[in-house]
Amino acid sequence: MSKLTDVPKRILIGRALRSDRLGETLLPKRIALPVFASDPLSSVAYAPGEVLLVLSIAGVSAYHFSPWIALAVVVLMFTVVASYRQNVHAYPSGGGDYEVANTNLGPRAGLTVASALLVDYVLTVAVSISSGVENLGSAVPFVVEHKVLCAIGIIVLLTLMNLRGVRESGKLFAIPTYVFVAGVFIMIVWGAFRGLVLGDTMSAPTADLEIAPEHQGLAGFAMVFLLLRAFSSGCAALTGVEAISNGVPAFRKPKSRNAATTLAMMGLLAVTMFCGIIGLALATGVRMAETPAHDLLRDGVPVGDGYVQNPVITQVAAAVFGDGTFFFVLLAAATALVLFLAANTAYNGFPLLGSILAQDRYLPRQLHTRGDRLAFSNGIVLLAGAAALLVWIYGADSTRLIQLYIVGVFVSFTLSQIGMVRHWNRHLAGEKDPARRRHMVRSRAINAFGAFFTGLVLVVVLVTKFSHGAWVALLGMVIFYATMSVIRRHYDRVADEIAAPDEPQDDVVRPSRVHSVVLVSKVHRPTLRALSYAKVMRSHTLEALSVNVDAAETKALRDEWVRRGIDVPLKVLDSPYREITRPVIEYVKSLRRESPRDVVSVVIPEYVVGHWYEHLLHNQSALRLKSRLLFTPGVMVTSVPYQLESSEVAKRRARSRQDWHAPGTVRRGPAPQRDKESSPTS
Amino acid sequence: MSKLTDVPKRILIGRALRSDRLGETLLPKRIALPVFASDPLSSVAYAPGEVLLVLSIAGVSAYHFSPWIALAVVVLMFTVVASYRQNVHAYPSGGGDYEVANTNLGPRAGLTVASALLVDYVLTVAVSISSGVENLGSAVPFVVEHKVLCAIGIIVLLTLMNLRGVRESGKLFAIPTYVFVAGVFIMIVWGAFRGLVLGDTMSAPTADLEIAPEHQGLAGFAMVFLLLRAFSSGCAALTGVEAISNGVPAFRKPKSRNAATTLAMMGLLAVTMFCGIIGLALATGVRMAETPAHDLLRDGVPVGDGYVQNPVITQVAAAVFGDGTFFFVLLAAATALVLFLAANTAYNGFPLLGSILAQDRYLPRQLHTRGDRLAFSNGIVLLAGAAALLVWIYGADSTRLIQLYIVGVFVSFTLSQIGMVRHWNRHLAGEKDPARRRHMVRSRAINAFGAFFTGLVLVVVLVTKFSHGAWVALLGMVIFYATMSVIRRHYDRVADEIAAPDEPQDDVVRPSRVHSVVLVSKVHRPTLRALSYAKVMRSHTLEALSVNVDAAETKALRDEWVRRGIDVPLKVLDSPYREITRPVIEYVKSLRRESPRDVVSVVIPEYVVGHWYEHLLHNQSALRLKSRLLFTPGVMVTSVPYQLESSEVAKRRARSRQDWHAPGTVRRGPAPQRDKESSPTS
Repeated sequence: MSKLTDVPKRILIGRALRSDRLGETLLPKRIALPVFASDPLSSVAYAPGEVLLVLSIAGVSAYHFSPWIALAVVVLMFTVVASYRQNVHAYPSGGGDYEVANTNLGPRAGLTVASALLVDYVLTVAVSISSGVENLGSAVPFVVEHKVLCAIGIIVLLTLMNLRGVRESGKLFAIPTYVFVAGVFIMIVWGAFRGLVLGDTMSAPTADLEIAPEHQGLAGFAMVFLLLRAFSSGCAALTGVEAISNGVPAFRKPKSRNAATTLAMMGLLAVTMFCGIIGLALATGVRMAETPAHDLLRDGVPVGDGYVQNPVITQVAAAVFGDGTFFFVLLAAATALVLFLAANTAYNGFPLLGSILAQDRYLPRQLHTRGDRLAFSNGIVLLAGAAALLVWIYGADSTRLIQLYIVGVFVSFTLSQIGMVRHWNRHLAGEKDPARRRHMVRSRAINAFGAFFTGLVLVVVLVTKFSHGAWVALLGMVIFYATMSVIRRHYDRVADEIAAPDEPQDDVVRPSRVHSVVLVSKVHRPTLRALSYAKVMRSHTLEALSVNVDAAETKALRDEWVRRGIDVPLKVLDSPYREITRPVIEYVKSLRRESPRDVVSVVIPEYVVGHWYEHLLHNQSALRLKSRLLFTPGVMVTSVPYQLESSEVAKRRARSRQDWHAPGTVRRGPAPQRDKESSPTS
Repeated sequence: MSKLTDVPKRILIGRALRSDRLGETLLPKRIALPVFASDPLSSVAYAPGEVLLVLSIAGVSAYHFSPWIALAVVVLMFTVVASYRQNVHAYPSGGGDYEVANTNLGPRAGLTVASALLVDYVLTVAVSISSGVENLGSAVPFVVEHKVLCAIGIIVLLTLMNLRGVRESGKLFAIPTYVFVAGVFIMIVWGAFRGLVLGDTMSAPTADLEIAPEHQGLAGFAMVFLLLRAFSSGCAALTGVEAISNGVPAFRKPKSRNAATTLAMMGLLAVTMFCGIIGLALATGVRMAETPAHDLLRDGVPVGDGYVQNPVITQVAAAVFGDGTFFFVLLAAATALVLFLAANTAYNGFPLLGSILAQDRYLPRQLHTRGDRLAFSNGIVLLAGAAALLVWIYGADSTRLIQLYIVGVFVSFTLSQIGMVRHWNRHLAGEKDPARRRHMVRSRAINAFGAFFTGLVLVVVLVTKFSHGAWVALLGMVIFYATMSVIRRHYDRVADEIAAPDEPQDDVVRPSRVHSVVLVSKVHRPTLRALSYAKVMRSHTLEALSVNVDAAETKALRDEWVRRGIDVPLKVLDSPYREITRPVIEYVKSLRRESPRDVVSVVIPEYVVGHWYEHLLHNQSALRLKSRLLFTPGVMVTSVPYQLESSEVAKRRARSRQDWHAPGTVRRGPAPQRDKESSPTS
């Protein structure tokens, strides 16, 4: 049945590439950094702009608060990085926030974090791609003119790539990420050099615009609120910091220390880039507004609806390098590419989290096994669909999407850090060694501060952004939470129902005899094979069963039976209404009534075909009958397959599908090694 | 798997009513007439109008040709009725046109007739419902203002009724049909009495309009062509005449004679009503035009787009009874109802034809068995979807839809009559008795004339209507023909492939031993049941097989195995990539390699659940594995079901679905009686 739903996908996506098995390669730090940090590093492409944008509500004079907001973001970043360095050491298994919250705070907290992360993955795709399109658009105007279309086009492209099983490779990440980081640093250094040493006056394209403040002369509480909102927006720079804590097993040894070092490097790079861009934006006179068409004035006149507000990073690049120069275009392209890679990380993280949640029975069981392509595909399509919907609803406007983004991240930060405090408390209770105790107390202090600070930010984000869109993210979390709770409850109920009793009971008692019944419609190869297999099974009785749907065909069957001298008795059931299922079910039930302690084994010859449309032409009655027989107690149903020539097609397809590996293996690290095949137990 | 696709249907339609089994009731003539004749009788609601409409192209003066056209239709009707009386006697099995063409002219002719009939069913729905809406609209203006919406609404309603399994009942047909027939006769008699005896001047609502002829003073060839077109349109009165020849088994004895008599009565009623309505239309000055907004003038000015052209039957009723009177509304309502019943006959005929075509392997095999609700439902949805599409494209305009209608009917008339000529030729060749020979020669003459006349009409219809829409019907026929040919070719190829050899060959030879492998993930009731069933099967070797996806779970399984002292060896396969399918398949293949002459029996414990969403949570890995195992030669796959409590829901649903009977049973007649259960053969 997977075949039917698979077909449209296969038509679009083609057959999966045959990829070699995952080599047991571990990541050196220089590769791990771009693999894990494309998401947080890429966020400097939009976070600084969001800060200026919010401040502009109080007029351009409020821009002088931006260094202070940058400072707050830097402090927060260092706090979060320091906190996660503790996580990395305490949970080298790569458990991530879900495991930390689940283990230390209980399943509800764990499920809350999981819901937050799932929402977060969707928003990572939506925000990163929208921002990437905006960055690309400052070099290629066509893209920004067809923003929604381009954004959804790229989502579709990434989805197809991931469905097809393009493997994540370290190099693929490394080149654009390093180009991007280098580009930003060159821009900062060259800008500083031109401004401070050469004394050039660099002007951003928007430097000659004025801002019409929405609220003139904000003060007191209103001003504090605005600054908090600006800070919340700046916090977008922290999204994705937790990724490394999930990926510890992928690092080279010493895993935890390397992961912690990479985390620190990432934090340092991110804050430097963030502050540098804010500084250059102030120096080059970048002007940004929430509703530019209306609030930006050129010579006292609003710029109007045709105005396109470019991201702050490209405006700064235009000022420093010059608009349209090689470096400008290179940086815009690298920025867009890194943002698309950041979106791609969500495609890899989503199935990984799904597999962990499936292990805890919050999601369908089959997500737990790797390489289950169908389950993986469904997850990817869900992720892409939700992201595309958001992009469409919010017009691929990264500013509006960011309002939704930060809630989930900080829910997971806060709960994870609280969980870590509990973790240290528990370990301290059993630890006597004073040196170790001192170390744990220090770690606990860091995590406690982290929990306090991220919790505070969460409150700030909720208060300042709730009506701007954070409620959508919360609603998404509630939906995920409820769905997973229901699934878990179902699995628990079933587990209770099927738990094996300690004393054998009725339904477990060994039946005494088996009646085998082979269903027959004509004498052909599939029937003969089913008969010969049934005979070798040595059941206590064996008969062939046919339903008289067409008198002529039944007569032909009887004649052929006699002519061939088949040594199995043939029973023909009459069916005045040309039904098949009912007479067979009635007959099986009558056998059961005659000897209730016995089992009836129904053997069905089945055609194995290669194309989905052939399914419509074969086996339908058999399938219907089979699904009805399964409801009848004391029955076992045996399919004896007959492989038609066309089944070769499906066999080849199944094989190539088996060779497929889910993307995201690089960051997951290799599975623990075990003996190749273990010996029988008893 | 039927469950998933079934759900949306079930939500809409609810559970099928429990209906008692078809009583062995045969139809008396007075009930058979309305059951079979609602289609041809209802066509007098639109056919007369179509004649006037075409004639109006040459101006109102051309209306005086209408009695001659009516005469031609009457002659044609008698010819067709006389011809089909021969069919009814020669084929009392109710084979219909398909059987006649197939038997006498070969499978290509048969398939052509089948394609024509399938197209015809779609058009019966589209035309009858559009015309019904127009008739209802002359009493209830709202309906005609939202014509397309109402027509599609009624299609949906009929579809739901038929999917739910509302049984056709003779009475349901009898009342509206007799009310309609009586109403039309009263109208004709009362109109004649008022006009001829009382000398009243009756005026149709359109009597004071003028017609602006599109072509003034048509003459010669153009005029002949126009008259032929008008005649073609009038032939719409003949659609559905063949229905009785399909339903002979439903008649009381003597079946053939009663059917022939009913056919004659139907023909007589139809032509009387047809001529009466044309006569009254001329007497009351009805004016109709192809494009009324433009071609109908009131005081020299076109009536404009707001004008609604009512059907001729309601215009006549308004003149005879008075607009809005009780009789007027009653007749309009009865007309609409009979037209909707006529549409419903297509819902009944479609699956009947489908089942015959399935028997000849032109359609999926499962259509052949009765009461296969899913197959029936798919056919009904296809029919309704195609009809709704046509209604939507043609704006529920019966005049435009009729252009498509008549081609299919006359293709099937003509081929059927040619087939009958061949039939008599064949029988005459072997018949010596002069009395019988004389009878056959007479029958042959009638059929030959029928073939000639209907063939002539077919040519006329094709020539006059091709560009007006007949090409759409032909295209539909080609599509049906091609699809059915492909299906037949597939079945033939498979039949060749699986034909049993006379000498036993490799794949038929009895294998020597069976290795049984029970798949196990945990020790719970389903597993224990599968183990106990497998043990009683007495295969040559038996082992339990588990895949190590999660080390902790595998350890728990081994411990439990030992603790319970289960006397079946447990083998655990390692799976470093957490796959399930691949290790099992590899293992099964290795067993086969070791002993190629043996069979491997894989026993899978399966959960039986009640709701479709539970399917997503259970058995997915098992199903995937099963479908892969079926590709492996020398394997049989046994499901041991474990019925969860929730499966009761599905069981009840399956039972109530089993009690459902396909609509159309009344006209199909009872199936031939056989002994309740026959004895074993050998």
